[in-house]
Amino acid sequence: MFFEGSEKKLEIVVKQSKQDSLRNIDKSFWSEVVETSGARILSSIHNDNLSAYLLSESSLFVWDDRIVMITCGETKLINAVHVFLKRFSKDEILSLIFQRKNEYCSHLQKTNFFSDINSLKDVFNGKSFRFGNMDGHHNFLYHLDKEFTPSPNDLTHELLMYHIGSDAKTMFCKEGQEKNNIREFLKLNKYFSGWKIDDFVFHPFGYSLNAIKGPHYFTFHVTPQEDASYASFETNLALWGEHKNYGFQILQAFSPGSFDLVSFNDFLPERPFQNNNYLVKYVKEELKCGYNVQFKQFIKKDAVEENAVSLS
Amino acid sequence: MFFEGSEKKLEIVVKQSKQDSLRNIDKSFWSEVVETSGARILSSIHNDNLSAYLLSESSLFVWDDRIVMITCGETKLINAVHVFLKRFSKDEILSLIFQRKNEYCSHLQKTNFFSDINSLKDVFNGKSFRFGNMDGHHNFLYHLDKEFTPSPNDLTHELLMYHIGSDAKTMFCKEGQEKNNIREFLKLNKYFSGWKIDDFVFHPFGYSLNAIKGPHYFTFHVTPQEDASYASFETNLALWGEHKNYGFQILQAFSPGSFDLVSFNDFLPERPFQNNNYLVKYVKEELKCGYNVQFKQFIKKDAVEENAVSLS
Repeated sequence: MFFEGSEKKLEIVVKQSKQDSLRNIDKSFWSEVVETSGARILSSIHNDNLSAYLLSESSLFVWDDRIVMITCGETKLINAVHVFLKRFSKDEILSLIFQRKNEYCSHLQKTNFFSDINSLKDVFNGKSFRFGNMDGHHNFLYHLDKEFTPSPNDLTHELLMYHIGSDAKTMFCKEGQEKNNIREFLKLNKYFSGWKIDDFVFHPFGYSLNAIKGPHYFTFHVTPQEDASYASFETNLALWGEHKNYGFQILQAFSPGSFDLVSFNDFLPERPFQNNNYLVKYVKEELKCGYNVQFKQFIKKDAVEENAVSLS
Repeated sequence: MFFEGSEKKLEIVVKQSKQDSLRNIDKSFWSEVVETSGARILSSIHNDNLSAYLLSESSLFVWDDRIVMITCGETKLINAVHVFLKRFSKDEILSLIFQRKNEYCSHLQKTNFFSDINSLKDVFNGKSFRFGNMDGHHNFLYHLDKEFTPSPNDLTHELLMYHIGSDAKTMFCKEGQEKNNIREFLKLNKYFSGWKIDDFVFHPFGYSLNAIKGPHYFTFHVTPQEDASYASFETNLALWGEHKNYGFQILQAFSPGSFDLVSFNDFLPERPFQNNNYLVKYVKEELKCGYNVQFKQFIKKDAVEENAVSLS
């Protein structure tokens, strides 16, 4: 059974004071945001800084002044913007960034990047870009054509892994796998003690995890299915700075055939990966909305001889 | 203006004696085969062994007992099979191979590989394969589930090049470029004296060429448009054997950012490309219809820093 693991992502920052924090909005609003996109809320965790909702298709994070929402499968994430606009005027929206990864099967999607952003054109002026070639991994990005100054610690890393290795396959393709085994595989106790964690094992396959501590989050989404496996890790921690050991730990655990690193306002290293991987694409762009974005695609050294995939 | 350069390909071999050669069939039949696919015949060349038709979207080659048809753009090449079946019974068809490359914009295509081969299921039993990953370059291949023994000299090479270099871009992106300049760029006089050549420069861009000598052919199709450039070369010559200097000559002239080599019943070298290119995919499969197929994808060493592609 094919499931599209690759994700769409939406980040919205609003003009808001502490007393009318996004976190005070009734849960029914967030349910509507999620359901209009074609997903549902499975569970949630909260701390003083943020709420993290685990979704049937990925995750929603809500801070006082911003949301990050990630959805996979055949969801229509762009619809979430229109629900948001029922409550917030366009002037209250300080920053909006919408991204789409290349999909394994784009012809099975209900919308494409261009139809998505076309639905915003009566409300917003925006700019859009593609990082990476159409015949390889790529990331479409749309942002408002509006100046915005992110805070100095506003950074994000997306680690997008394709064709996961045999250890990860064995772990995630076992039906009825227990959460504890997966958490151990991800070495969460070692690296993230004291974090609140919320995770879900899907049937027959698939795993999602949200973790929060203070204003920080990280999230895993794993679609282990043979021939179209995909695993993503996203965080607002300094993944290749202070937390770089965990960055390398993830790459070692998943041992992907290829992976992309997308960073916002933080540096991605090149050299440390080059022993085991070719850097085949390196795109950077300073966006007018205040984010410096880097996209790097790596492919594992050395191509091994394979048989073709039999389809019938 | 986006034009999909990547191709679909059909090869059909029929049970036929010299006197009822496919080449004796009236041209109106070949026009119907071509037009049902959504293309038209622009011109043709002939010799004692084969006829080569230059199409508005690529090429058709006709021998006594077989055809090879290649189409690009938004054509529906699978329809050609159904026109063929109006004149030939399924038992007269000894071998049928249908291929589709990954497309730059698969969502703009009128059909996909699966709907294509689904249209054959009431007539034929077939097998299908994918060479290469869905998130990288790949080639879908369908063949009849029927034994077939190709002759010892029945080989094919497809050289599929993406993101052509600056020399090739300058040559092919000049509006009103003269055929002679292109033939010189391709070094046809040096390598292929005595060959019959038929070529066409499209407006505003694009170039197609058919060349024949005895039973041999080669064909070029170039879509030079910025950001989605593609150039293909296909031949039944021993491109990496006797004609390997020309193989390297093509790679030097087009200097692609990445390229695929697909071979049927002949060896593709690996080492000679590895100085300038990474081998990132190597798939081989011995098909039950008698062809040993190899697919190799190469990506140019070393990723240079680029800016994102601005879409709006």
